[in-house]
Amino acid sequence: MLTKLERIRRDIEELAKFNATPGKGLTRFSLTPQDRAARRYLRDEMIGCGLRIFEDAAGNLIGRREGQLKDAPAVMIGSHFDSVKEGGNFDGPAGVTVALETARVLLERNIQTQYPIEVVALIEEEGGRFGAGLYGSRAMTGKVDAAQLKERKDADGVSMYEALAAFGFDPEQVGNAQRQPETVKAFLELHIEQGPILENGGFDIGIVRQIVGIQQLKVLVKGRQGHAGTTPMAMRSDAMDVAAKVIARIGDSAKEVGDGAVATVGWIAVKPGGYNIIPAEVAFSVDIRSGRAEHIDTLVQKVKESLALFSANAGAEYEITPLTMVAPVQMGPDIVAKELAVCEKLGLKSKWMSSGAGHDAMVMAGIAEVGLLFVPSRNGLSHCSEEWTDYEALQKGAEVYLHTVLELAGASL
Amino acid sequence: MLTKLERIRRDIEELAKFNATPGKGLTRFSLTPQDRAARRYLRDEMIGCGLRIFEDAAGNLIGRREGQLKDAPAVMIGSHFDSVKEGGNFDGPAGVTVALETARVLLERNIQTQYPIEVVALIEEEGGRFGAGLYGSRAMTGKVDAAQLKERKDADGVSMYEALAAFGFDPEQVGNAQRQPETVKAFLELHIEQGPILENGGFDIGIVRQIVGIQQLKVLVKGRQGHAGTTPMAMRSDAMDVAAKVIARIGDSAKEVGDGAVATVGWIAVKPGGYNIIPAEVAFSVDIRSGRAEHIDTLVQKVKESLALFSANAGAEYEITPLTMVAPVQMGPDIVAKELAVCEKLGLKSKWMSSGAGHDAMVMAGIAEVGLLFVPSRNGLSHCSEEWTDYEALQKGAEVYLHTVLELAGASL
Repeated sequence: MLTKLERIRRDIEELAKFNATPGKGLTRFSLTPQDRAARRYLRDEMIGCGLRIFEDAAGNLIGRREGQLKDAPAVMIGSHFDSVKEGGNFDGPAGVTVALETARVLLERNIQTQYPIEVVALIEEEGGRFGAGLYGSRAMTGKVDAAQLKERKDADGVSMYEALAAFGFDPEQVGNAQRQPETVKAFLELHIEQGPILENGGFDIGIVRQIVGIQQLKVLVKGRQGHAGTTPMAMRSDAMDVAAKVIARIGDSAKEVGDGAVATVGWIAVKPGGYNIIPAEVAFSVDIRSGRAEHIDTLVQKVKESLALFSANAGAEYEITPLTMVAPVQMGPDIVAKELAVCEKLGLKSKWMSSGAGHDAMVMAGIAEVGLLFVPSRNGLSHCSEEWTDYEALQKGAEVYLHTVLELAGASL
Repeated sequence: MLTKLERIRRDIEELAKFNATPGKGLTRFSLTPQDRAARRYLRDEMIGCGLRIFEDAAGNLIGRREGQLKDAPAVMIGSHFDSVKEGGNFDGPAGVTVALETARVLLERNIQTQYPIEVVALIEEEGGRFGAGLYGSRAMTGKVDAAQLKERKDADGVSMYEALAAFGFDPEQVGNAQRQPETVKAFLELHIEQGPILENGGFDIGIVRQIVGIQQLKVLVKGRQGHAGTTPMAMRSDAMDVAAKVIARIGDSAKEVGDGAVATVGWIAVKPGGYNIIPAEVAFSVDIRSGRAEHIDTLVQKVKESLALFSANAGAEYEITPLTMVAPVQMGPDIVAKELAVCEKLGLKSKWMSSGAGHDAMVMAGIAEVGLLFVPSRNGLSHCSEEWTDYEALQKGAEVYLHTVLELAGASL
């Protein structure tokens, strides 16, 4: 008989086999042959845990174990099982695996819970195929309709609507995936940290108190194109000079705000882009995150002020296009308290954290109290083939997870 | 009979017809059907001016008028007749046209010069087809051999060697295009300014005293890739933050140095380039120009200092790859003095200038005293369909040109 560690390891390694890009990281896009194979593995494991299986109209896979209370809301546990392009084996599957492992322990110890438990394996959290990030949880919270499914297309022009139909789902019924708040008591997710904090601090587990809000902007600076040799400095309106001065302040502004706020310029493009041409246009992205909405507002304001100042100095113009805007989401205080108590009971070193990345738990907060636990990521890496969490660390996470689920579902070991 | 203005206008407009991209600016690449048609027009006009025609082994077209002195070196006059992709009608042809017009005046007034005069129409100055910029003048100064012709290929993979052979030249003999210094008394070129200085100041003519030196660099900043949400500011090594801080200083440094020095970052690229990913690498170009080599050195040094400072602060690394390096070239002081005297005699408003762009005159300085005159460019534009010089302005330039040629060749009106 396998140990808990071996079971966790087997789940991760088996799921890693359903991969469209072997040797170049894990690529498991939604509604592909790799999705189908992973889904079959998960279904078989769920059945082996004594769960009753069903798939909702959105394509999420769910295994349910009834509780003792009649018509009681379920404790949902799990994460997503899709990946980014050429990503790693842990982002998503780690959370599905510890939920499965929890179901296994309940079965083998014959534990009765007050509330039902649903192990969920969500699809298209990454948006790798259709660009529809957090899709599975958005469908569960009633945020997806059939029209959206027709708009979302993959790189080959196949719509999510068509892909769902080809997979055997009825995309017209996607609205039926919505769960009413009274049917969900809590949603608990474990995820890899995707950052360096736990590893650097020697922590076993991160207790997330909030998922940061995100404001992404696209900035366009419009100067005046000119010859790099024949245009005197005083006659220039150099879009790159303006953009660089703005960007150079963004990181420093985030440091000044402090309190965990971060700001990043990850993309930039210049037109026309010749070595000997003063740029006419420079476009760049800004990604601002904080657990506090006022910090995000402050940083957006600072970007605007820099743009106004340096553009005016150079006779340039600019446009700011707000893109993704997500408000900070607080984890359920009762769940956070339970997570902390469990860690103390088990003697594990935990850390209060903000999650800098979005997760399905963030969306599920729309219909239930949610909890999010982090396990360490080696070197803070994720979304790449080097993504790694030691199985021992994952097992510790699974223990915290199991005990928290028991607390939420009304049972004890 | 056409007036001088009409003749100049006709030359420009006729040459503009030999264009591979009508309606989208002028595209006349070297050794193409457009080149052949323009060459035929120029040859006919040269013959009409009483010139003896020959083509050198590199593909340059030359029309020679003998002087009274036996075996005396020639005064070479002209410019290039190729264009950039989708460029304008004046960059190059303006200089060929005023040289032709000079030959016409010599013929119609039956002026005898002491020294021979050679009207030259050079090819591949822009490097638009083969990337071999300043080719015609480089061949004349002995800088091109057959092996280089085989290496230079156009977008279709046709080598310059093959294209020359297909055009009827013998590329093995390209070395024979070299002119010995004792055969060239001077090289005088007129060119459009390609910048805004003359127009903005209301000047008729620019007397170039030097062509600036150019140092281009490619800079690579290497930080550490990370998730934009999960990596605290204090744990980042953000290649974009470093690059922006360096770039933000480059223009200001050029202004501090003053004295006409310019610096430009025209190109930038970021890896991996996701909105939510802290960049691992940012590469950018730096183009520094000045008439004084020490200013160029100062500005390169300042870029290095900024890179060292900000990279160290961020724990990033960097590489600097020197690219194009051209030393400043001084125009012949005797020619410059003659140009100034002519302008004063004709009552034209002239300006001492540096040329921020390279020209064939820069290369020809290797074998002869050179002179370079600028005429105004509307809005400072060039290398685009909007490139324009008023014909009246071009005629004024032609007058200065004619009188300077007469001074150099030993004759007077």
